Amino acid sequence: MVVSTINGTSPLSHSNGTTIPLSTFSRNSFVNVEKGDPVAFRPYWEKVRDECTVEIKGDEWMSYLGDTNNLCWYMVPQMRDAILRLHNVVGNAVTKDKFLVLGTGSSQLFQALLYALSPSESSHRPINVVAAAPYYSEYKDATDILQSRLFQWTGDAALYDKDEPYIEVVTSPNNPDGTLRVPVVNSGVEGKIIYDLAYYWPQYTPITDQLDHDVMVFTFSKCTGHAGSRIGWAFVKDIEVAKKMIRFVQLNSIGVSRESQIRAAKMIGVICDGYKNLKSIESDHLFFDYSKRLMKERWEKFKGAIEKSKVFTLTKYPTSYCHFNKDLSEQYPAFAWLKCLEGIKDGESYLEKLKIRTRGGGRFGVDAKYVRVSMIGTEDEFIELCTRLSNAKRE
Amino acid sequence: MVVSTINGTSPLSHSNGTTIPLSTFSRNSFVNVEKGDPVAFRPYWEKVRDECTVEIKGDEWMSYLGDTNNLCWYMVPQMRDAILRLHNVVGNAVTKDKFLVLGTGSSQLFQALLYALSPSESSHRPINVVAAAPYYSEYKDATDILQSRLFQWTGDAALYDKDEPYIEVVTSPNNPDGTLRVPVVNSGVEGKIIYDLAYYWPQYTPITDQLDHDVMVFTFSKCTGHAGSRIGWAFVKDIEVAKKMIRFVQLNSIGVSRESQIRAAKMIGVICDGYKNLKSIESDHLFFDYSKRLMKERWEKFKGAIEKSKVFTLTKYPTSYCHFNKDLSEQYPAFAWLKCLEGIKDGESYLEKLKIRTRGGGRFGVDAKYVRVSMIGTEDEFIELCTRLSNAKRE
Repeated sequence: MVVSTINGTSPLSHSNGTTIPLSTFSRNSFVNVEKGDPVAFRPYWEKVRDECTVEIKGDEWMSYLGDTNNLCWYMVPQMRDAILRLHNVVGNAVTKDKFLVLGTGSSQLFQALLYALSPSESSHRPINVVAAAPYYSEYKDATDILQSRLFQWTGDAALYDKDEPYIEVVTSPNNPDGTLRVPVVNSGVEGKIIYDLAYYWPQYTPITDQLDHDVMVFTFSKCTGHAGSRIGWAFVKDIEVAKKMIRFVQLNSIGVSRESQIRAAKMIGVICDGYKNLKSIESDHLFFDYSKRLMKERWEKFKGAIEKSKVFTLTKYPTSYCHFNKDLSEQYPAFAWLKCLEGIKDGESYLEKLKIRTRGGGRFGVDAKYVRVSMIGTEDEFIELCTRLSNAKRE
Repeated sequence: MVVSTINGTSPLSHSNGTTIPLSTFSRNSFVNVEKGDPVAFRPYWEKVRDECTVEIKGDEWMSYLGDTNNLCWYMVPQMRDAILRLHNVVGNAVTKDKFLVLGTGSSQLFQALLYALSPSESSHRPINVVAAAPYYSEYKDATDILQSRLFQWTGDAALYDKDEPYIEVVTSPNNPDGTLRVPVVNSGVEGKIIYDLAYYWPQYTPITDQLDHDVMVFTFSKCTGHAGSRIGWAFVKDIEVAKKMIRFVQLNSIGVSRESQIRAAKMIGVICDGYKNLKSIESDHLFFDYSKRLMKERWEKFKGAIEKSKVFTLTKYPTSYCHFNKDLSEQYPAFAWLKCLEGIKDGESYLEKLKIRTRGGGRFGVDAKYVRVSMIGTEDEFIELCTRLSNAKRE
């Protein structure tokens, strides 16, 4: 097994010269690529760990209030400034003339948006919530968990033909399949669109446009890899929508962790400082350069493994011009979306036999011959994944 | 105006010898005691600020996962250990043979519990959610915001006479009126009880019993004053209830901020270490001793102001034996609950004219002649509150 490393940051060789085994996986242990825990970028944060250190003293950040001058009263000014600066550096979203609403991850904002975009008169029927299949596996349960009379999950947006109000969730790049998306509902009724832009960052996709939609949701988790912080944000054009979202977050969790906000602001600051001091910094200290190179290397290795296996096909992605990197680039999605070749009806079960745990197509509203595989786990796990996939043979 | 300070920690005199005005309030500015922002304890945390400093490096706590061996997979072991240790020190709850579920504040856990305690078959009518009036002003909206088919707010528990399943929320000590509570519903049907124990800490009330209920909810905010951290927890007897709560938190926010958990664990550790090293430490370095003395001083001053005003009466509280402090003690609730004397029909409006912003009885399900006043704001605000109240005259 050849171990490809990124600038010597592989977890397989220690800087103190000790050698650890190439893989910690035994033949019987599972490679779990079912979830999307974005720990792949940890080696970058190890490099800059001291620059990024956050210190919080005992008497700091005690209040519920973050900024009483802001509509989003629980957001501290540092957090707001960092988010605006990041979008300014990356150029992936127009932030002017929009309200910024902070959430406990984008999951909370998704629910806040369903509430805010639903008609509030109880005489209405629940508004239909749709997304084009394959869609993110949690949308359905997150929509229906409380059996709300305000909104209900209605499934695949491509099949939606009701003459009723709807909310379409457009995830672009899409989870699970990485494709760039636009709304697909073709209805006589006006719909409301939630753009879930969790993966619209330069390591996953060329930044082709500075998006300027009425409702755009981002998350810190998939941007920097700090999933544990539970920080997400939304840009919203309509102040009434923003107010209802903030009311939801107030009743749901009385705001968002102050410690997470302070830390996220610091991390974002370090990323942005890097691009500000572009000429004096090594490229592997530039976060999006580093993380894109990592994703590219993984995808190349992964494609090689898939080709060897002769069992799966992969989604094809176009090459586009990236305004951030100023070059032509492919996409390197956070998940691979595999389609099993004829003869394998259930990809998840098939891979389970190879001791690879994935999430099957059924969870995403499509056929079981599809499976989603995380590309953003640990290096060790990823290498083992490739090894096992490349050994896969048709039964 | 005589300024009473607690061990020299008044914000009115600076340690560097400079003097700042006794009050930052002008005659026209409002004293806002409408919310319950628990910043009163900040002077304590200033004293121990360096002991409590938390440092988080760039590559730490990145994963969604906190402890894969725990049912509550997003909770880090440090957080769990700190919570168990705190209850062991204070003796306010039996933690043995219960599941610990962490939440983004107790607000999220309240919603998680409504979900977990409701019948899941959609054929059922919504379960009734009740609490004895006066009840916490946010329960109604938090229950009804999404117009769930699983549960609905039904109001005052004392008036509940339906022959249907119900959830009774028992807040003890109660918000707004500080009274110690037991369930009040007298129905032929078996109910489920949520004990909201946000204020069952030694600074507010004698710890009379080590409570041992099926569902008990606590919050870091009102315990230590760190409201910005959004940390709450529940002890739950039934594993199926715990599992449903964790599923709710997963869909709602994919867990709880790791930064907040680390910091809360540290703070709780400092409190518990103090009581472990009881003999070698000054009593104003013991958190609950300090904070109880602060609440006692405030309540004495406040009662004096109310007596002078001749406009209000106050709830009376019994004296009980506190197993934690090992003495007889009164209650010193986080909120004062004022009843206006005859002739004043709307306490909130009356106090608004005195430039005191409060929350009126209507929000708590009772008459407008009642108002709730926060006792846990800044010292400056509290002193100005007392001054204005003592000058109140019947019109």
